[in-house]
Amino acid sequence: MTDKRSSGDVLAQLCAVLEARKAASADDSYVASLHRSGLNKILEKVGEESIETILAARDAQDSGDNTKLIYETADLWFHSLVMLSHLGEDAQAVLTELERRFDLSGLDEKAARDSAKD
Amino acid sequence: MTDKRSSGDVLAQLCAVLEARKAASADDSYVASLHRSGLNKILEKVGEESIETILAARDAQDSGDNTKLIYETADLWFHSLVMLSHLGEDAQAVLTELERRFDLSGLDEKAARDSAKD
Amino acid sequence: MTDKRSSGDVLAQLCAVLEARKAASADDSYVASLHRSGLNKILEKVGEESIETILAARDAQDSGDNTKLIYETADLWFHSLVMLSHLGEDAQAVLTELERRFDLSGLDEKAARDSAKD
Amino acid sequence: MTDKRSSGDVLAQLCAVLEARKAASADDSYVASLHRSGLNKILEKVGEESIETILAARDAQDSGDNTKLIYETADLWFHSLVMLSHLGEDAQAVLTELERRFDLSGLDEKAARDSAKD
Repeated sequence: MTDKRSSGDVLAQLCAVLEARKAASADDSYVASLHRSGLNKILEKVGEESIETILAARDAQDSGDNTKLIYETADLWFHSLVMLSHLGEDAQAVLTELERRFDLSGLDEKAARDSAKD
Repeated sequence: MTDKRSSGDVLAQLCAVLEARKAASADDSYVASLHRSGLNKILEKVGEESIETILAARDAQDSGDNTKLIYETADLWFHSLVMLSHLGEDAQAVLTELERRFDLSGLDEKAARDSAKD
Repeated sequence: MTDKRSSGDVLAQLCAVLEARKAASADDSYVASLHRSGLNKILEKVGEESIETILAARDAQDSGDNTKLIYETADLWFHSLVMLSHLGEDAQAVLTELERRFDLSGLDEKAARDSAKD
Repeated sequence: MTDKRSSGDVLAQLCAVLEARKAASADDSYVASLHRSGLNKILEKVGEESIETILAARDAQDSGDNTKLIYETADLWFHSLVMLSHLGEDAQAVLTELERRFDLSGLDEKAARDSAKD
């Protein structure tokens, strides 16, 4: 599958779509209906998708087939983007934080390790 | 913070770093120590970070300060990338799945809605 | 609401009901349909109910009303009992483990603290 | 292991212990240190233990050994009792809710099914 656009473009374009859907009718758009239901409903979805991702990872390890794992991780990222959008953020803020961590030669590891001890 | 590289580069570079760390010594690298501990330990981290993200989102709604939300979402994405790496995948597979959903004008919504009914 | 039966009776009776429903028709019984769907479906429910309990606890702290918290915790315990039943266990095994921890004067704290460091 | 006390006594006694520990020094008591850290810390523990329970259930299905499953479920119930205690409730409220559902001959199933559709 050739992909001429960079992956950054994918997240940026997805965030633009999410922003547009935020104002759409809840009847026509799943994203709009999530925003209308409120933050708790969006967070329930983030939680559900993280559990389904974890179970899909165990299944993938057993079967050697990663199809469902990719699908569920996409669901998890998708709903975390809706959460960010609901609170006025987008993917770029998270990517900048990740870049900050792994860019500073060696300090990325430390930042991740520190957070892991929380 | 100016960012000359696109966000796709950030994820691609992070995946390259994660791939390199996979083979490093567990004493020197948090990523290597996660791989050495095994899939369950990595999935526990994905689960923990999703809970911390959910709580940070509630705090952000109350306080109007998104700093911790961004930090915890970065942790969640980071550990989901380690999970993908452990099972032989990377960010590109997830981005391709997201692109497939929202590219097909209008079908992205349907795919997301279907998954939400699981 | 007066309750002449002890709370232990409640869990024991609930486990007896769950055991009976295990063999029922999936059309007639939610419990039977969960068992028929398999362990992953039951674990998804345990995960979902833990997220809903967490969100209800935050709401309870804000509102001072614990009604939904009690309801969601009952859902969490209920689905964890279905999980135990699916794997051939029941509430008594968990209660015995809890008793072991807090009975041994002072060692309950230690056991809980050890587990918290996992 | 013979258990002369009913299981209800176990939960009631555990709640009494939890109530006593609430006021103890955080240096001496894990329970007191959780209360001192606040609701978010307690909810993180509830979330972590639910993930560990889910992973232990998958391991139990693979190995046929339920030891870790029982241990992690006890951890999950224990931390959900600390959560209830933090918000001024105890096990009895949850048991009363469970009794209400399964007592009303046949309506327990309906209540559980309704909640499952949330």
